[in-house]
Amino acid sequence: MYKLGSEIVKRAYNFNAGPSALPEIVLQQAQEELLNFRDTGMSVMELSHRSKEFETIHNEAQSLLKELLNIPENYEILFLQGGASLQFTMVPMNFLNGNEIGNYVLTGVWSEKALKEAKILGRATTVAASTKEENYSRIPNLSELIVSPEDAYLHITSNNTIYGTQWKDFPETKDSMLIADMSSDILSKPLPIERFAMIYAGAQKNLGPSGVTVVIVRKDLLEKVSSSSIPTVLRYDTHAINNSLYNTPPTFSIYMLNKVLHWVKDLGGVKEIATANEIKASLLYDVIDQSNGFYRGHAEKDSRSLMNVTFQLPTNELDKKFLAEAKEAGFIGLNGHRSVGGCRASLYNAVPYEACKALQQFMIMFKEENQTN
Amino acid sequence: MYKLGSEIVKRAYNFNAGPSALPEIVLQQAQEELLNFRDTGMSVMELSHRSKEFETIHNEAQSLLKELLNIPENYEILFLQGGASLQFTMVPMNFLNGNEIGNYVLTGVWSEKALKEAKILGRATTVAASTKEENYSRIPNLSELIVSPEDAYLHITSNNTIYGTQWKDFPETKDSMLIADMSSDILSKPLPIERFAMIYAGAQKNLGPSGVTVVIVRKDLLEKVSSSSIPTVLRYDTHAINNSLYNTPPTFSIYMLNKVLHWVKDLGGVKEIATANEIKASLLYDVIDQSNGFYRGHAEKDSRSLMNVTFQLPTNELDKKFLAEAKEAGFIGLNGHRSVGGCRASLYNAVPYEACKALQQFMIMFKEENQTN
Repeated sequence: MYKLGSEIVKRAYNFNAGPSALPEIVLQQAQEELLNFRDTGMSVMELSHRSKEFETIHNEAQSLLKELLNIPENYEILFLQGGASLQFTMVPMNFLNGNEIGNYVLTGVWSEKALKEAKILGRATTVAASTKEENYSRIPNLSELIVSPEDAYLHITSNNTIYGTQWKDFPETKDSMLIADMSSDILSKPLPIERFAMIYAGAQKNLGPSGVTVVIVRKDLLEKVSSSSIPTVLRYDTHAINNSLYNTPPTFSIYMLNKVLHWVKDLGGVKEIATANEIKASLLYDVIDQSNGFYRGHAEKDSRSLMNVTFQLPTNELDKKFLAEAKEAGFIGLNGHRSVGGCRASLYNAVPYEACKALQQFMIMFKEENQTN
Repeated sequence: MYKLGSEIVKRAYNFNAGPSALPEIVLQQAQEELLNFRDTGMSVMELSHRSKEFETIHNEAQSLLKELLNIPENYEILFLQGGASLQFTMVPMNFLNGNEIGNYVLTGVWSEKALKEAKILGRATTVAASTKEENYSRIPNLSELIVSPEDAYLHITSNNTIYGTQWKDFPETKDSMLIADMSSDILSKPLPIERFAMIYAGAQKNLGPSGVTVVIVRKDLLEKVSSSSIPTVLRYDTHAINNSLYNTPPTFSIYMLNKVLHWVKDLGGVKEIATANEIKASLLYDVIDQSNGFYRGHAEKDSRSLMNVTFQLPTNELDKKFLAEAKEAGFIGLNGHRSVGGCRASLYNAVPYEACKALQQFMIMFKEENQTN
């Protein structure tokens, strides 16, 4: 709830899969200074990307991310455009030379797309493991992965929004050549950054609004970018050399990202966030587990995502009824992805405990009213 | 000037080259609804890009652009990411097959970059004309262009921000295969759209904040995109088929674009805007022409840009003094690009007449105080 002039406005219970909820206080701050950023007489959107004011925002966002995720000095932080979809092609374009092999773990549609783009480029690829035959209801065990010291990298999708699965531990690879699409769970918990060669994430779930893509890349990888036929704007080294100012960046998205990072820091950092995320998710998983099969989770228990809780009801009709009544009650974005159906509640960092609690209560009430035995 | 609570805030005289000034009323509207878009209880940034609310914004922006620029039905309007820099590679990647030749007119650094990216891809290119030896102080005459019916396309940069030059008329090409980077003057005047195969523009000058790139492309071109080795997200047909929702779009930038388009419509359309732009630019060009050489325009008169007025003073010291005093007086963004030096005033659509008038007065006063004879 917040006050706009004399009006009290209730915030929606926003469970969107992304773009998704942003911290209310971040939006309030952005609103306050929207026409006059730090007494410049300009909106932050009207600043030159080469001005001192924007440089401060940009560098602040980089150092905050370093601090919050404990990122060592030998990593570059880049702010790019194009979302994870552009990273799917930039990764093999930059890091697979000659006959080098990209090794992919398939845990859902997004991993499949990442693999597909490496193939479109004509690069050599292999599949370390896939749980497709189980409708991606789990993350493979680390022991199931077929990896080789010859792999140029091992690519994973750390959280799978559609299926509601999430990696709990990360594989060790030779020379730590693990590359992860963390679009939907970056900043939700502490990370062993040293195991990763690169992490990339579209901002629109845990980091801010859509329009900016965060890349954390180990510096030695940039030397691998050798082919002279890579378009300048698609080379990671171009953006590293230019501190992500090779071309005009999405300045407002980076400004919002910076504010969200400040908010995480003010809350106490990613450890605190991780605890809050566990509590929020368990509110819903507890209802599922205690429902005697009324709510059926899509993900296997030890692969469950703290970000996306996916479940179905006993019949399609009950799914529809649940979604209709939830919508009526003010819950936004609970429809499951069409490829698995059912329901999905996305509980990203900025979704408040109160919204999860309200959904828990709604789920309990709906079960009581609709269970047949 | 606007009122924030009890505070009166003066808007800066913003002559930034981009990102640049936005209409004050657009910013006010955005501010008002930043936490609660149309009674959803959510910020527009928190909406799903697949929600009805966002779809409305997205489709409204497309139809407004069609209406304002009088774009025929056989063109697609796409909202992409990555700025003109990504278009530099997407154009040859999509439209030069086999030995087809891309023909480029060089009128500045941005045209050079566009050509360079075609070459990096290993595509065949040629140069229709270049004014580089004249430090890009003019646009070539149409009669100077070396074009051939064999060209796959002719590429131009319609306005050159660094040098302050602008195309006044556009070449006729076989099958109207003209492709233009209009990042810095789209929507500043009516356009003969039928002559163009494609127009692209980063939004951050006349269209809105940075983060979204507008592409207007004739539908028959999409059939030329045949190579199976083009990354999915870099294919124009991918975005056309998916109405620019193949992946998560920069929703807030598109929302702002839509508001800016409404603002142009409310002002009476691009003809009205063009008249206003002529009046604004002539305020400054008149001072230059009547200064007896105190202010020296970089661009030749018949190539002068209405968007970017570039000029130098008699000495480097006077340039510096002018820029320092102008900054002191509240004029933002007047430094010329480092490659030509001197001063530059960018007068995009949203720069108000009052700001240009104030700069004119300042220039007159500065000349009176500093001319030696």
